[in-house]
Amino acid sequence: MHALEPLFNPKSIAVIGASSDEYKAGYQVLFSLKDFPGRLYPVNPKADTILGFQAYPRIADIPEKIDLAVLTVPAASCPDAIEEAGRAGAKSALIISGGFAESGEEGKRLQERVLSACRTYGVRLLGPNTAGFANLHSTVSANFLPWIMKMKRGGIGLVSQSGAMTFTIASLLYGRKLGLSIATGTGNGADVDTADAVDYLAQHSETKVILLYFEGTPNGRRLYEAVKNTVKSKPVVVLTVGKADVADFAASHTGNLMGSYALKCAALSQAGAVIADTVDDLLDAAALLSRVRLEPGREPGVGLLTGQAGPGMVITDYLRSRGVVLPELGQSAVEKIKKLLPMSYIKNPVDTTRPGPSFKDIFLAMAEDPSIDVLIIFAIYEPAVIDPIELFTTIRDRTNKPVLFATAGFPEAVAEAVEAVEQMGVPVFTSPDSVSRAVTALVRDSKAAYRETGAAEEESPGEIRFAGKVLTEAEGKDILNGIGIATPERAVCSNHDEARQAFRRLRKPCAVKVLDSRITHKTEVGGVHLDIYGEDELVKALELIDAIGKEGESPRKYLIEEMAEKGVEIIIGAKNDASFGPSVLAGMGGIAAEAMGDTSIRLAPLNLEEAKSMLYELKGGRLLEGWRGAAPADIERAAEAIVKIGGLISSHPEIREIDLNPVRVYKKGILALDALFVI
Amino acid sequence: MHALEPLFNPKSIAVIGASSDEYKAGYQVLFSLKDFPGRLYPVNPKADTILGFQAYPRIADIPEKIDLAVLTVPAASCPDAIEEAGRAGAKSALIISGGFAESGEEGKRLQERVLSACRTYGVRLLGPNTAGFANLHSTVSANFLPWIMKMKRGGIGLVSQSGAMTFTIASLLYGRKLGLSIATGTGNGADVDTADAVDYLAQHSETKVILLYFEGTPNGRRLYEAVKNTVKSKPVVVLTVGKADVADFAASHTGNLMGSYALKCAALSQAGAVIADTVDDLLDAAALLSRVRLEPGREPGVGLLTGQAGPGMVITDYLRSRGVVLPELGQSAVEKIKKLLPMSYIKNPVDTTRPGPSFKDIFLAMAEDPSIDVLIIFAIYEPAVIDPIELFTTIRDRTNKPVLFATAGFPEAVAEAVEAVEQMGVPVFTSPDSVSRAVTALVRDSKAAYRETGAAEEESPGEIRFAGKVLTEAEGKDILNGIGIATPERAVCSNHDEARQAFRRLRKPCAVKVLDSRITHKTEVGGVHLDIYGEDELVKALELIDAIGKEGESPRKYLIEEMAEKGVEIIIGAKNDASFGPSVLAGMGGIAAEAMGDTSIRLAPLNLEEAKSMLYELKGGRLLEGWRGAAPADIERAAEAIVKIGGLISSHPEIREIDLNPVRVYKKGILALDALFVI
Repeated sequence: MHALEPLFNPKSIAVIGASSDEYKAGYQVLFSLKDFPGRLYPVNPKADTILGFQAYPRIADIPEKIDLAVLTVPAASCPDAIEEAGRAGAKSALIISGGFAESGEEGKRLQERVLSACRTYGVRLLGPNTAGFANLHSTVSANFLPWIMKMKRGGIGLVSQSGAMTFTIASLLYGRKLGLSIATGTGNGADVDTADAVDYLAQHSETKVILLYFEGTPNGRRLYEAVKNTVKSKPVVVLTVGKADVADFAASHTGNLMGSYALKCAALSQAGAVIADTVDDLLDAAALLSRVRLEPGREPGVGLLTGQAGPGMVITDYLRSRGVVLPELGQSAVEKIKKLLPMSYIKNPVDTTRPGPSFKDIFLAMAEDPSIDVLIIFAIYEPAVIDPIELFTTIRDRTNKPVLFATAGFPEAVAEAVEAVEQMGVPVFTSPDSVSRAVTALVRDSKAAYRETGAAEEESPGEIRFAGKVLTEAEGKDILNGIGIATPERAVCSNHDEARQAFRRLRKPCAVKVLDSRITHKTEVGGVHLDIYGEDELVKALELIDAIGKEGESPRKYLIEEMAEKGVEIIIGAKNDASFGPSVLAGMGGIAAEAMGDTSIRLAPLNLEEAKSMLYELKGGRLLEGWRGAAPADIERAAEAIVKIGGLISSHPEIREIDLNPVRVYKKGILALDALFVI
Repeated sequence: MHALEPLFNPKSIAVIGASSDEYKAGYQVLFSLKDFPGRLYPVNPKADTILGFQAYPRIADIPEKIDLAVLTVPAASCPDAIEEAGRAGAKSALIISGGFAESGEEGKRLQERVLSACRTYGVRLLGPNTAGFANLHSTVSANFLPWIMKMKRGGIGLVSQSGAMTFTIASLLYGRKLGLSIATGTGNGADVDTADAVDYLAQHSETKVILLYFEGTPNGRRLYEAVKNTVKSKPVVVLTVGKADVADFAASHTGNLMGSYALKCAALSQAGAVIADTVDDLLDAAALLSRVRLEPGREPGVGLLTGQAGPGMVITDYLRSRGVVLPELGQSAVEKIKKLLPMSYIKNPVDTTRPGPSFKDIFLAMAEDPSIDVLIIFAIYEPAVIDPIELFTTIRDRTNKPVLFATAGFPEAVAEAVEAVEQMGVPVFTSPDSVSRAVTALVRDSKAAYRETGAAEEESPGEIRFAGKVLTEAEGKDILNGIGIATPERAVCSNHDEARQAFRRLRKPCAVKVLDSRITHKTEVGGVHLDIYGEDELVKALELIDAIGKEGESPRKYLIEEMAEKGVEIIIGAKNDASFGPSVLAGMGGIAAEAMGDTSIRLAPLNLEEAKSMLYELKGGRLLEGWRGAAPADIERAAEAIVKIGGLISSHPEIREIDLNPVRVYKKGILALDALFVI
């Protein structure tokens, strides 16, 4: 049994502070639980019965160890109440009221005391400061909006950090007659947090898809693990906020590239979740994924049969521009359809202009095409031309592939047809956007489940001793060499003489750089001199470096380095995020990553495939594949470097940040031209 | 009177081919017109009355010159029927049936004959191959879906190239109880096309907002002009398709940067339209813009007062990530609100956590803030906490600024409140996405109306003689110099000796390039040699150029040119589009524009402000503003060059394409480093 079973699916509930005063929470909670089919115990020292239920003076008087204690007493009384409930053997508790950690120092202390009592007695706690939860399958409504219990029972599970978003999403699901399974807030998440709730819903058999709304979490890594584990059995769709900060994105330091929205989405997407951009994305994903899930696939194919060109084009445009593939039909399907539609050019979508008697056979020809994994039929609702009920009665048993129906027409007439077709098990959508959003989520779920997100089996980079808080470029590059990432030939020099000797030995031209861990942006202060061919130029460069700044107490050092050949430039970064732990970043070099935000992020450690996908994901990634006749760059080696950097930061939590900017990628091999390590 | 008034707002209608056979179009059209309050004349040589209307054997027998003849006869009979109608003085005609230009050669000829008859008699024609139109304000339903007449009369006008999209959009408006004014297809657009229909709706007083769905048009320039003219009096919202081709975007030539979707959107946005990305964008824009329009503003400010944090955050995130500004409140508003909400930190949005008695006063403080142009109130529907009807009764007359209400809750209860609040003139939305999309459109309309899109008052570049179909780089650069765009010092040389002499004269290092108009991608074939410092290198470069290709019949020429200083690189392009006419393109140089698609497009000619906005619109545009401590680049001069190129292509329609790639932008001034002219 799951540890949260007594909480989310209780057989017995005590309401601590139950009251017969309609204006008190103690009444409202009991009232909303009145249809609970298990055993319900009001706890109130002064009443015999409340709402017809026998009341008990204290929780200890209840003749069984209860599953769930719902506290409706003020915050200040909660620690004692939890203590009492724990002592009486209650397995879980729910605190709806606020006045805890979210409200200042005193609240924090109260929450600590509650939590400590929970730990002592092994009580699992939902809240405090949460809107509670509802489990429609077991008729438990432990929250303040009783209308949720009027919703259809169904397969959609909802975990939300915000009570208002729980109600907002639930009201929109309600309006669309979609069935809810369990909806829960997590409030302050003192004990049970979003990761726990997702983990519970993962094994809750009535729940077919999990919707997650969250804003931020102190333990992103656990959420990542919970989602990763969940998607093996059911889809997870995530809506989060923070885009705007990323879009603003005015900050100019590389560190800021890992804006939290990007990191949250990258991490949960890597875990296998579908990321919803909007509430509607979430709803449409829920509508479809609660009923249908595709097998994991590298690139699932969508077939679209449309009775009318316009909406077919709108749907196709939406899907293709979101990366959903409508594959061209194979020879066999094309030939069959050509016989049925001699005038049309057959690709995918197939447009019948107006649905005729051959519509079904065209559909079946498409359904048999092996490149098609899911089919959409769009047809304006005109029963005289095509009757959807008859259509789906004929075809529903003729294919095992999921089929969706999208239509439009006089709403009152359409509503009936929608219901009838839904009854046949066909998901129906009444707007082009809606079906497009749903299918996009369906395909993304399948692709996410397909990808192998394991860590590479790399040897550990072993023990590394870091010289200081910020390493010099030379120290950083030595570490890179140690883990097998190539860097240019170089020499660290303490004076002009050493520099001259090194210069003579190295291949020209050379780069001459200041070596000072306090200077992180060397170029900006004039600490980088490139294309040095002769000793005169060398000396000039050294003198310019000597002139930088005034903090010259420590003797200045120089890095003399062979200049690298031209190549495609990328950047590789890594960061230890407080919530999500070690993560890596890749971006196109130069201005693309920083000025244009063209980056991709993953949690580390990661495997080679995942690292490659980071590079392919970049808008500028095509440059690596051989742009305008150039030879393709060594993506394999570049991805390996990402894996190594991911391994390094994962095994060395003391590293705060790594920044290789740029890394040149050649036809064969790569070279890291700069290295910044912050420990 | 508008030329299309007899078509879209007829006082008398003849149905040619009217029939009493229920299965014939001639019956259905008459049936759907049966409530027409004007004069309706069935034309049928064999009937006395049809559906109770007196029938006439021929249109000439009708006792008046009718406004609109609706043809329900087969395509082949249409030319004669139009001829007859024209001779009888009909002012306009509608052909619903297909079988014309869309169906092959014979259909094309039929369409030509129809059109020629229309021209002879001055008959304006809608169609053929269109779903017709409906005018709810004058109860004309000249189309096949009579349910459209059951819709609410209202201010939303709809022009659609696709009949199915007309019905799809209308059904969705219907479902949302939004009021329709006129909905029309344009079909083959043989005479009346989307531009004409927009132009008609522009002066149609009942129409408050125009929705336009179109796929492509042979005369984009006219549509641009029609939209530009329309937005002075009412908003235009456009949905079009083609994103997917732009996203695919695999083609590698600069010419392809002006993918048609990008051009369509850029042109209509420049004309002042709001571009909808999805059908829902279109619907929500319609819902709001049919009731409210903001004054033109550079950056209209949105104020959001929310009773709950979660949905407030979702709305804010949506708006900000779409570039909508929620300005920080001014001192006076902040002080007032601080007194009412002592615990909260007051920015914008203002979050009251739960709406309390001070909600109204907080609202009023926000409404008085001069930075706020429109206000959104979000509150979960909980009448016990806040009753929206009472709230809006109190505040509606206390501000002149538009106020929107967004809510969520038990759908059946909410529906009543929505209706009551809508009755007070407050637009209500029941999802965070919906209100966000609507406000985004509202703000974009205001910004579009604010911008001055006139052409610069440039002197004409005068007559230019083009040497061939594709100019050499040197010829192209001479033209640039002629219109005042600077280029590097250079010499065109016919042999190695001349090249050596030129080299001695020019500042080193030089670039040495092949000069051959047949070679458009010089770099790829090894025709560009940079950083030439000495004569040995020069000779080597010339020899490598001599070795290119085998088409050496014409004597090879060389371009010896001073290398330009480093600077921020942009590209400037221009193209004469078959539909939209002259257009210009700007992008960041190097890989950004081509590999990453970071470009912006405008129709030409254009003024300096518009050209500047192109540069600011680029994701990489921040590089021009001074990236990482660099001096800001000369945006003024760069924008001037765009204006000049726009002027050049506008006054020389014989130019097909211009491509300046790259143009270096310095602290002061610019230099075009390459120039490709295709005539």
